[in-house]
Amino acid sequence: MTTIITESGWTTKEIEISQQILNKAYQRETETLVAQVQHQINNMTDIAQLWQVHDLLSAKRYDLDGKYDARESMLIFTFAQLLKEGWISLEELHGLDQAKLAKVSSLSKI
Amino acid sequence: MTTIITESGWTTKEIEISQQILNKAYQRETETLVAQVQHQINNMTDIAQLWQVHDLLSAKRYDLDGKYDARESMLIFTFAQLLKEGWISLEELHGLDQAKLAKVSSLSKI
Repeated sequence: MTTIITESGWTTKEIEISQQILNKAYQRETETLVAQVQHQINNMTDIAQLWQVHDLLSAKRYDLDGKYDARESMLIFTFAQLLKEGWISLEELHGLDQAKLAKVSSLSKI
Repeated sequence: MTTIITESGWTTKEIEISQQILNKAYQRETETLVAQVQHQINNMTDIAQLWQVHDLLSAKRYDLDGKYDARESMLIFTFAQLLKEGWISLEELHGLDQAKLAKVSSLSKI
């Protein structure tokens, strides 16, 4: 079977792995956010805290919209950011070639 | 004791009553909102519902910012809107003079 490699240098298998990792990281991050919002909203003592919840959701929505960039040309940066923030581990990225792993690892330390 | 009447035709007593009513209405409306957000966030089955909560908070925050206009020149309109939406009753406005009550009542039906 021929391995299809896209113009950006990703194999179809790598793209598939990447999509799974992105989905998993997004789920982790949003579940954490839901738990945080639940905690805040269920322990409110002042109405001003409701607007803090709103501010948190506004910031996280903006953050998530930009961060989960699944374009092939951006995947290295997306993974580096998620690794830096602890939403994925380097182990989960196995299946990507060594050069990509090295780039993600290096970028995550910047 | 002399009754002080402001330029807009409100007595200091009416201003005091108005502020109490506005506070009470704001409390009712925000407590209702908190209960609604708690219900939604504690019964989530899909992450998309988190963004619905965010949309709700965005809309209500904008709505509340504009609606609780306590400038004397706007009080009639503020009360009419709160009456229309059911956050205050006409009975609670007793203490304001009859002409103001009549205006609030009429405007609330538009």
